[in-house]
Amino acid sequence: MAEKPHTPLLDTVRTPADLRALPREQLRQLADELRTEVIDAVSCTGGHLGAGLGVVELTVALHAVFDTPHDRIIWDVGHQAYPHKILTGRRERIRTLRQKDGLSGFTRRAESEYDPFGAGHSSTSISAGLGMAVASEHLGTPRNVVAVIGDGAMSAGMAYEAMNNAGDMDARLVVILNDNDMSIAPPTGALRAYLAQLVSSPAYRGTRDAAKSIVSKLPKPLHEPARKTEEFARSFFTGGTLFEELGFYYVGPIDGHNLDHLLPVLDNVLEMEKGPILIHVVTKKGKGYAPAEDSADKYHGVSKFNVITGAQAKTPSNAPSYTSVFAETLIQEAKADPRVVAVTAAMPSGTGLDKFAELFPDRIYDVGIAEQHAVTFAAGLASEGMRPFCAIYSTFLQRAYDQVIHDVAIQGLPVRFAIDRAGFVGADGPTHAGNYDSAYLGAVPGIVQMAAADEAELRHMVATATAYDAGPISFRYPRGDGMGVDMPARGEILPIGKGRILRQGSTVALLSYGTRLGEVLAAADKLAALGFNPTIADARFMKPLDEDLIASLAGNHDVLITTEEGGLGGYGSHVATFLASNGLLDGKVRFRPLMIPDRFDEHSSQGDMYAAAGLDRAGIVATALKTLGYDDAAMKAALAQA
Amino acid sequence: MAEKPHTPLLDTVRTPADLRALPREQLRQLADELRTEVIDAVSCTGGHLGAGLGVVELTVALHAVFDTPHDRIIWDVGHQAYPHKILTGRRERIRTLRQKDGLSGFTRRAESEYDPFGAGHSSTSISAGLGMAVASEHLGTPRNVVAVIGDGAMSAGMAYEAMNNAGDMDARLVVILNDNDMSIAPPTGALRAYLAQLVSSPAYRGTRDAAKSIVSKLPKPLHEPARKTEEFARSFFTGGTLFEELGFYYVGPIDGHNLDHLLPVLDNVLEMEKGPILIHVVTKKGKGYAPAEDSADKYHGVSKFNVITGAQAKTPSNAPSYTSVFAETLIQEAKADPRVVAVTAAMPSGTGLDKFAELFPDRIYDVGIAEQHAVTFAAGLASEGMRPFCAIYSTFLQRAYDQVIHDVAIQGLPVRFAIDRAGFVGADGPTHAGNYDSAYLGAVPGIVQMAAADEAELRHMVATATAYDAGPISFRYPRGDGMGVDMPARGEILPIGKGRILRQGSTVALLSYGTRLGEVLAAADKLAALGFNPTIADARFMKPLDEDLIASLAGNHDVLITTEEGGLGGYGSHVATFLASNGLLDGKVRFRPLMIPDRFDEHSSQGDMYAAAGLDRAGIVATALKTLGYDDAAMKAALAQA
Repeated sequence: MAEKPHTPLLDTVRTPADLRALPREQLRQLADELRTEVIDAVSCTGGHLGAGLGVVELTVALHAVFDTPHDRIIWDVGHQAYPHKILTGRRERIRTLRQKDGLSGFTRRAESEYDPFGAGHSSTSISAGLGMAVASEHLGTPRNVVAVIGDGAMSAGMAYEAMNNAGDMDARLVVILNDNDMSIAPPTGALRAYLAQLVSSPAYRGTRDAAKSIVSKLPKPLHEPARKTEEFARSFFTGGTLFEELGFYYVGPIDGHNLDHLLPVLDNVLEMEKGPILIHVVTKKGKGYAPAEDSADKYHGVSKFNVITGAQAKTPSNAPSYTSVFAETLIQEAKADPRVVAVTAAMPSGTGLDKFAELFPDRIYDVGIAEQHAVTFAAGLASEGMRPFCAIYSTFLQRAYDQVIHDVAIQGLPVRFAIDRAGFVGADGPTHAGNYDSAYLGAVPGIVQMAAADEAELRHMVATATAYDAGPISFRYPRGDGMGVDMPARGEILPIGKGRILRQGSTVALLSYGTRLGEVLAAADKLAALGFNPTIADARFMKPLDEDLIASLAGNHDVLITTEEGGLGGYGSHVATFLASNGLLDGKVRFRPLMIPDRFDEHSSQGDMYAAAGLDRAGIVATALKTLGYDDAAMKAALAQA
Repeated sequence: MAEKPHTPLLDTVRTPADLRALPREQLRQLADELRTEVIDAVSCTGGHLGAGLGVVELTVALHAVFDTPHDRIIWDVGHQAYPHKILTGRRERIRTLRQKDGLSGFTRRAESEYDPFGAGHSSTSISAGLGMAVASEHLGTPRNVVAVIGDGAMSAGMAYEAMNNAGDMDARLVVILNDNDMSIAPPTGALRAYLAQLVSSPAYRGTRDAAKSIVSKLPKPLHEPARKTEEFARSFFTGGTLFEELGFYYVGPIDGHNLDHLLPVLDNVLEMEKGPILIHVVTKKGKGYAPAEDSADKYHGVSKFNVITGAQAKTPSNAPSYTSVFAETLIQEAKADPRVVAVTAAMPSGTGLDKFAELFPDRIYDVGIAEQHAVTFAAGLASEGMRPFCAIYSTFLQRAYDQVIHDVAIQGLPVRFAIDRAGFVGADGPTHAGNYDSAYLGAVPGIVQMAAADEAELRHMVATATAYDAGPISFRYPRGDGMGVDMPARGEILPIGKGRILRQGSTVALLSYGTRLGEVLAAADKLAALGFNPTIADARFMKPLDEDLIASLAGNHDVLITTEEGGLGGYGSHVATFLASNGLLDGKVRFRPLMIPDRFDEHSSQGDMYAAAGLDRAGIVATALKTLGYDDAAMKAALAQA
């Protein structure tokens, strides 16, 4: 029988209700169109591609079976939700993804009623879903709650905590384990090996065909003989005892790209009684787009690209990224010292440690998405005399805060924290903001805190951290490229707790902690054009605070301004506390701490974010002049002059 | 054959080497003596009793088989390590447990080379042990590493993260799962049910006797036929597939009070090849002391007690504890509002929620030792319109910091955080210090932060939190009893972000956040005796900061002093930042923030800690006078007068 000619279906689907009105036979076509639309959209915007392509069929199937938005679908991490966004009323805006004022690159409650729980970090969906399922019981509002979580995200402890809790309750929760054998990096861990064993079992391989033939013989509509399908699923698919032992009803593994398999299993879920269910779905990251399927990272996160060739646009850069400077310097240190080892929580590429791994495959530990374990594992290494570097983004180190305090700081163990993506993160938005580490680490006694003003400083700080065995030490550096400064061949060991004065002036002192130094220098030039000769200092250390330097600056200037790429409670707040506690603000100096404002910023460009925070050169000059007593008119005139 | 008369063995064991020199037949007697010594010591000091009694035989067996301190034994949490301390050179000091300058109530690296990793919080031991095992390989120093972890601690995500990582590596790590069916509260969770099933299996029940007879027939010394014992263990003990699936070699369950079972199995471990091993040991918390065995909480934490009767000393109190006021008030609110539900992470008793559970058994969720999940589960509840209270100690909320930011605050979900044990915790020591929450929550945008000045204020804050649906809200309150103030029948809803002035005065303003208000009032009386009339204010809120109040106090006084039971980066640092940023310190006011010093304090009494921090009345008066310009002589004279 000849196929009917395809008419575009995606144009007719404004909401999932439209999708549910389609005959199920047309969903395959809809999925194909949806995949094409995702590829085209991301080619324009950049963003996460591979994850979304892997769940096109699953997205279609979920919206076909479940009564969204009344039923809740929670996408773990949320970066795989682009197809979901297209099907839930956001197709018109899909080419604004990750742009200023555009759609978020993750799910977001404020964006759509179809996003019942926002994300960005991984492994939260089961906990949130269980809360929703329980609330549904309390409120007497029956609904299905579905959490879709990747196999990588399952390595995180909070997913296990949630499973352990859900498995002991009778709340109706559906967990879909999206097993694509990839998180961002090739996965590690025993669970991964276990899943691979389930998928490679003869039962799974044998029943793929069996399933097809059985499903095709089921009477239509498919959801009527759900009980029978259920028996079929249970009898043909074996394994999953680990999940069964945690109290879940396990179904799978099933082919996540085959709607004839997905739809009856999901239909079947509607018929099941209470208690948690885990459906093990096998998908392929990047599915249906050859350049993604062929790529090592399956186009996890991409720049804008050419759809035909898959070639990604490269942003030209004149300076190495901070990440690469960290990695290269750590390699230098590791060559000189066999005690140097590196720990990453599933981010070997993002942290630059993939380069380290090539040279020292037996001295890097990728522990999975498991920041808590990463930090205490590093503490164990340090307790025996190793020199572990724990490289974790600022935003993900939040996951290990207790371990930093309890296992590292209280014991004074020399774990080295390399804190990447510290400060503004631009398009990744508020879930990934690196604004808080200065404050949350600063609250903990005994951790040396450094921030790199440029890439050469970062090299010195890696060297300093390597040599420092007296306790925990950290250094933060931002997303993006360095300043283009000359690089020293090797890092120098910095004196702990000492800043440096770059320019000795008078009246105004600009004290920079970290990467705002470039803007401080530019601001100083503007102030010089207005006849001022500001003193410029680089704090280098937040802890120990360079009290001599700060007291001297406060004692010898009319105005003292601190700058930092961090928020309330960080460097400026520590300086303010020190100055006040010691009576150093009782005299003439006027102190103004500039910092990231105390609010969640939407995704935007890093440059826009600096300006909005008043942390660019113009903002620094304006603060200086205002504090010097310029009124608005005088300031305007002065700025026009500068 | 008649038993030989018992001669005291414990006196001859100064170190584990002495123990290892004893004939194994004598270890039973040693264990009995050790148990008696633990009971007697804790009867004098108070502390954790039940956990230690449960591992007496295990402690003896571990030191008999392993070459401590070269081999590493890591006690998870560390509160069960009293027998270990007695056997490792600390018997003379065992009656100083938890006293100022005495032994810590937990393991501690600084205390003994036999404590290779300190603890206090649960579930860290597998991560630390894996780090040590890996370090041993890198350093070419073969050693055994043993982590002893309770079944309750296994509910925490970080234990799973560590197992998942270890199970994929070939490092030699021995995990002893001490299954006593109790953490602090009766355990919950699917894992618990799974373990119970293993223990109740016919294989286990049948082989207890079988094991006994077989072991008794083994040739001595027992470790020689280790391979044979190993086969015996593997063939008789079944189950444990969950751990096998996570890559561990599972042995058990075995009777943890029977040295004839424990010793051969541990001997056997020495013979095994690389890879992680889990030994499932079944013990009874409180074993061998009838009052503990019969008690519901197995004497988890006790006051000093009478050894014969088991009667615990009660400290007389004139005021209800903050914990009980929280619980009673939450019950009031829950009676009035069916949306109020409570979440605890394995601390129903410590948080007072056990009372809530009696009245509302279907509205409390004990999620296990799983703070991460607790918070995001509460976020899920809140997202559907429930009013969840997440009651977690300040120190344990550190475990859920990322979830507070990512799942609660960014989404503006109205989760209510009841932060118990905020501030100084006395005998529990630095691992449990509640010093950091003001700073770490203060760094996060959008969380309302309150601190209760007394128990009546706490009641108001519970009511305020119940009514507040606009976003996350928190209230902190200390360990211990209230001030004895009159209690309102019901809590009032406080205006968000507004403090209160208790006494309007001049020259000196004392602005208190939280429980230091009592000392502030007493300090004000002393200052009044010296002719001053200080203004006294209770901030109530740290966020939003009461900017009008603070600006007014700063504008109308010569001296402004803040007090709080929190550390650097908290209330005082926020006030300093606000004042500096707005030029409010440019004038005559001298601002001094008093806070907990930025250091880890050893265990001590709360009163001593207040005094050492300068946060008692004397310290507040001294700061006021010094800031007013009194020199040392004038201050001495003034204080003598007051």
